[in-house]
Formats: sequence, C-alpha cells, structure tokens
Amino acid sequence: MANALPVSPLARPLPELPPVAGVRFGATAAGIRYTGRTDLVMAEFVPGTTVAGVYTRSKCPGAPVDWCRAAMADGRARALVVNAGNANVFTGRAGFEATQANAADAARLVNCAASEVFLASTGVIGEILPYQKISAALPGLYATLSDNGWADAARGIMTTDTFPKAATRTARIGDTTVRIQGIVKGSGMVAPDMATLLSFIATDAKLPAGVIQSLLSDGVKHSFNCITVDSDTSTSDMILLFATGQAGNVEIGDAQSPHLADFRTALDSLLLELALLVIRDGEGVTKMMHIVVTGAVSDDSAHRVAMAVANSPLVKTAVSGEDANWGRVVMAVGKCGEPANRDTLSVGIGGTWIARNGTVVHDYDETPVVAHMRGQEIEITVDLGLGNGTAQAWGCDLTHGYININGSYRS
Amino acid sequence: MANALPVSPLARPLPELPPVAGVRFGATAAGIRYTGRTDLVMAEFVPGTTVAGVYTRSKCPGAPVDWCRAAMADGRARALVVNAGNANVFTGRAGFEATQANAADAARLVNCAASEVFLASTGVIGEILPYQKISAALPGLYATLSDNGWADAARGIMTTDTFPKAATRTARIGDTTVRIQGIVKGSGMVAPDMATLLSFIATDAKLPAGVIQSLLSDGVKHSFNCITVDSDTSTSDMILLFATGQAGNVEIGDAQSPHLADFRTALDSLLLELALLVIRDGEGVTKMMHIVVTGAVSDDSAHRVAMAVANSPLVKTAVSGEDANWGRVVMAVGKCGEPANRDTLSVGIGGTWIARNGTVVHDYDETPVVAHMRGQEIEITVDLGLGNGTAQAWGCDLTHGYININGSYRS
Repeated sequence: MANALPVSPLARPLPELPPVAGVRFGATAAGIRYTGRTDLVMAEFVPGTTVAGVYTRSKCPGAPVDWCRAAMADGRARALVVNAGNANVFTGRAGFEATQANAADAARLVNCAASEVFLASTGVIGEILPYQKISAALPGLYATLSDNGWADAARGIMTTDTFPKAATRTARIGDTTVRIQGIVKGSGMVAPDMATLLSFIATDAKLPAGVIQSLLSDGVKHSFNCITVDSDTSTSDMILLFATGQAGNVEIGDAQSPHLADFRTALDSLLLELALLVIRDGEGVTKMMHIVVTGAVSDDSAHRVAMAVANSPLVKTAVSGEDANWGRVVMAVGKCGEPANRDTLSVGIGGTWIARNGTVVHDYDETPVVAHMRGQEIEITVDLGLGNGTAQAWGCDLTHGYININGSYRS
Repeated sequence: MANALPVSPLARPLPELPPVAGVRFGATAAGIRYTGRTDLVMAEFVPGTTVAGVYTRSKCPGAPVDWCRAAMADGRARALVVNAGNANVFTGRAGFEATQANAADAARLVNCAASEVFLASTGVIGEILPYQKISAALPGLYATLSDNGWADAARGIMTTDTFPKAATRTARIGDTTVRIQGIVKGSGMVAPDMATLLSFIATDAKLPAGVIQSLLSDGVKHSFNCITVDSDTSTSDMILLFATGQAGNVEIGDAQSPHLADFRTALDSLLLELALLVIRDGEGVTKMMHIVVTGAVSDDSAHRVAMAVANSPLVKTAVSGEDANWGRVVMAVGKCGEPANRDTLSVGIGGTWIARNGTVVHDYDETPVVAHMRGQEIEITVDLGLGNGTAQAWGCDLTHGYININGSYRS
C-alpha cells in the first residue's frame, strides 16, 4: 500500500539532520501493519527536558492524544514512542490499556515516570492496536537509540507519505547558539485545526514548558493551521516540542521577551517549512496552491476565506487541470459566509490581477496566467476591499492520484 | 464539453410531464455557448400567477439572482427566461444591464411589467453574457411556447448535467385536485445553503405568494438543503415556485392550514425527488450516499454532522472504492465541531452496526457490509447517543470522473 506509491513530484530531499544535544532517536520494524519497513520510532530525552504540545480538536481523538494531553500536566518529558500503521482511535477501553502498557514499557527502559512518556499513533482507525508487538520491540529499539537517529525516525513515522520530511534551524538566545529540529508526517486527512498530523520537534535550548508552549501555539497559527490537503481533520493530530536545555543558554522565563525574538523567528520558520513539506506530499499532489487574502474585515475572516479557497474541490481541480478558472475563486469566496462585497472583490493569479472590483479587468491578457498555471506553485490572490485583515493558506490540487490512494487505502 | 459526458449510471428516465394549466414552456438554441443543443428556455404564466423563491446565500451572487430578489417584491410573475452556458456572475454593470435588457424583451412579448419577468443564468462565471443573442432569439422562442414544453425546458437548462430531470405530483386542496410539477438542473458546485441550483416548479393551485413562499422555504430545508455533491455553493442557485391559480380550488390564506396538508406533503415529496435527481447526476457519480444521523443534541446539530460526513473527501473516496471504512465516518463526525462523545458514538453501514459506544462491535462480521458497499445506494447511520436530534443528508462518491469533468471545464 503506502510503500508502493510513487514519490510526490514536489518532494524535497531530506536535509542534513545534525544531533540535538540531549535527544537520541531510533526506529525499528515492529510488524504492526507494514512489512519490509520500519514502523516504530522511539526517542529518549535527557532529564530536565520540558515539553509543549498542540493536539487535534476532533471530538473523537485517539487514545494516544488523550494520553499526551494528560501527560503534559507537569511539562516534563523523558521519552517518545510513535507507531505507524494503526492510529489506536475509536478502540474504547482496549485503546486506553494499550497506551498504559506501552508507556509503562518505555518508562522502565529509560527509568522515568510513565507520565513522562509521550505516545503517538497514526494509521487505520478502529482497529485494536497490537500493543504487545510494540512492547516486544521496544527493548531492542532502545538499545539502538542514537544522536544520529533523526532520519530513521522521519522514515519510521510515514504512512501514505511518499518521502520523509524534516527541517532544521539555529537561533541565538543571548550569546548562545541553539538548534531547533523537527520531523513531520502527513499526506491525507490534513486540515488541521489548532494542531495537526504528527510532528516532533526538539531544541537544545533551556526553556520552561510554559514558554515553549506559548511559542509553539503562536507559531502553529501561521503554519500548520494554514494548510489543508483535503479538508478532513485527523483524530490523531499532534505536534510536540521538546526542549532539552543542553545548549547552556540563559533561561528566559517570558515568551514575549525580546531575548527570544530570534528563537521565535527560527521556530516559526521551521514550523512553516514542516507544514509546507506536508503539502508537498499531499495525497496525489501535482501542484501546490498558495492563497493570499488581503482587505478582509479581520485576520480571522481572511483566514476563513483563504481556507475556503484552498479547500474548494472546484478550485483544486481547476489547478490540477492548469485552468485559470478564477470564477471558481469568486465562488469559494462567496460561499464561505465571511463578509464580502462583490463590487469590491478582486482576484489575481500568479501576480496578474484578473478581476478588479467585481468585474474582469479591461483587456485582460490570459497569457502570463496560463504560463503560471503550468508551474508547480500556484499563487492565488484575493483582495476583498473591505478592511485590513490578511491571511495566507497553502493547499494542493485534487487529482486522480488522491482518488487512487483513498479508494483503496485499507485494501 | 457537457454534451460529451457519458450519462450517469444512476440516471432516471424523464417522467411523463402533463400540462400544468396556466403555464406554457419552450426551448431554443440561442448559441450562447453550446452548439447543437438548446440553451435558452422561456415560460409564460397566465395573469394572476403568484411566485415564491429561494436563492443562493453566496456573498457574490449572479446578476439574475439580484434581479429575481428585487422582482419578488410584489409576488407576481408572468414570464421566466433561463439561459445555460453563461452564469452572468461577476460581470459588474454589464451583468445588470443584461438582465434589464432581457427582462424588457420578455415583458414586451407577454405584455407585462419587467418586474414580472424572472431571469436565471447558469454556466461559466466572469464572462460577459451576450444578452443580444437572447434578445434576438426570444421572439421566435415565444411563438413556440406550448403546454407540452416541459421536457424541452428540462433539457434546455442543462450544463454538465448528463440527463434531464423533472418530477410531478398531484395533491388535493379541499375538493380540488391540483398538480405540482418541476424541473431542475445541477451536477457540480452543489452544496446548497437555503437554496440551490436552478429549479422551476409550477402548480395550477390558487395560492397567495406568502403561502407558497412559506411552503417552499419549509420544504427546501429537508430536501435541497440536505444534498451536496462537492461542498461548493453556486453563485446562481435559485428555486422558483409559480402558482397559476387555474385549478379553481378554494384559496387558502394560511400556510399552516390543515387544508394545505396534502399539498405540503406532495410539494415536500416533489422537492426531495428533484433534489435527489441532482445527486443522481452528481459530477462523476457512481454511488449515492444517504446519511442518517440520530441522537444529536438538536436537529440543527444533526444536520451539520450529516453534511460533514456527506462532504468528507475521505468518506466519499472510500464509498467510491467500495471500502467500508467506517473510521473515516468517525473522523468526519469528530472534525465538524458539533457536540459528540466518542464513548457514546455508534456507526452503521447498510443496516449493520459496525461500532457501538466507541468501539468496534464484538465479532463484527463485515460480510453484509461488504455486499452493501457494492451497491449503488450506500446507507451510513450515525448515532451520537446524546439527545433526540435527527437529520438526513444525501451525497455522492468522489471519483475520477469528477476530476475529469472539472479539470477541463472551460477548455
């Protein structure tokens, strides 16, 4: 299944992933669902590591999401265990018991409290997780954890992903250079709402849990919460940020401190890169869409307009067909319920205004727009002409590939 | 383009469409966009005909929608002019002038006020309507209007529709038998919100405009507002109901009167048949989906859950692939923001409960469900286990055909 998919034409090579002091990663094949590939990932963090997380807002979250939400309470983390192939969602009491068992397994290995173990699962919904396979595989996996295990981890968490995804940054806190590095998986069921997918990020900076939580929550608003593959929101979305404190920086206790400005910029940039890697691997993708909305009554309103355009099946199929069908953009703006006035609305593609103030531009020349539509990154601009609200969103086209993948996912 | 599409496998034959006293219909080829087919439809109604309408809630409606909303003011209608191939949407002042010109053309022919002429357009957005072609064709078309023109009208309003759609009913008002008959077009850009598509319905009953408006608005709530092809809402949606008063029934001045109970039942049934014909012609459809939601905190909440399931690309592709992937139903329920509790949620397909109260049914046997998924009409049942709210929704699968049609609509 997943392994047989051709690699996305928008794939990016995995970057060099240097060690992050205080983090050891590894991956192994536990045989949970796939054969011939790794599907179980573990990380160990040094004592003193803080953690922040954002999670799916689904009303039917998976058991691991419940587990992590509870484990967040004291802001400390020592281990992470992730499996691919089975989401442990809608599995009732058996799902909860699986999380208890695997957290206890990992806690024994690293010698910590079970509440310092974070768990994530991704894959099919509704099947009981064979957690015994994870229990059996963990001791061997633990013995292989390494400073250089990041790339293996990026591969081990894939499901319908066609390439492994990671990004890395450095930032200055005071006189100290710290690293921020993360991996992400996601390809379909992607329309995050306050959280998304599985992404695990670590930094060697020394920062309290409250500070990294604030930075992560802010950063997600303009990255993961602005992407969509198919408007469907996963029950298992989760982004965790771990701070090991090994860099030796002066600890900053306030997320708004100017001393964290560079770190915040680097984190935001990392989050956006990780989010866009997911779009680059959107199921069946052949083109990315970048929607820019200006002139809305508020930023929130602009966000909803941008997401309506990015989610519209008719806009997505037009992009797939290289058709500069801007009328469908008008339709998507009109349907989403946000304040809009036909007579002040303007639409552009690839830097060319096609319609301004409610009607097509006089002597509109489609030539540069047609050329732009042949590219891989399609820019759609909407100016509502009402106020100062702005937003961006990123999506992908809707293709035969999406239907091939999802018409037969379980078979 | 539209003409070349294969007929939907779920198509239904056009029923016998008898005359409705006081209504004359006709169609002609005005060459607005298509060649070799009719694309202009006209109806004349006898003096005294009342009218009711529901329209798209798009913030960017077409010029004909604006025209009809204004023309509704006095509740009287004498003529209807509909063109296919060009929606006259986002056409600025030129679009308004086109409606003025064509309404005046029709008013001269039937000898009425322009405000008694109703206009509708469907097709491409953003291109200036060549209204002169309509002006030129109307006199010849008017000369051909006939009591038996309903089937021609049903064909003349098609765009990406693959078969003409109509339905007919009779009802008793007091001692009088009246007829209610309608035509509808729609295949993509179908996710009505208080109104939808183009549908024109006429009855020979004598009923005030306020009464038919009330009956129409009520009926649409449980029919056209419960269907979706692709979650995209048209800028041109419009349903008009005309009452010619030729049946000679005693006029009833209150929509809630028990004397209208049979008429209401027949109208509701007609609206649902017309709405489901649209789903049967959903772009690329191979299977219909019928979603039944029970146990919600309210009917409104149940409606939003049902529509979330019907709109989910992952549910739609699973149905297309004949995959009883009930986990995607759980996902769709979880993402839509309505009150839901994982531990009281149950999901069934084709009359078989698969999961109850948050986990898969013990000894669940997939055999009958697999057989059901091979059929053309897929039943999905969701019980939220919270309250007494119920709703139904109808949708269709998402297939390669949808992408073929919409990746090249304008080319």
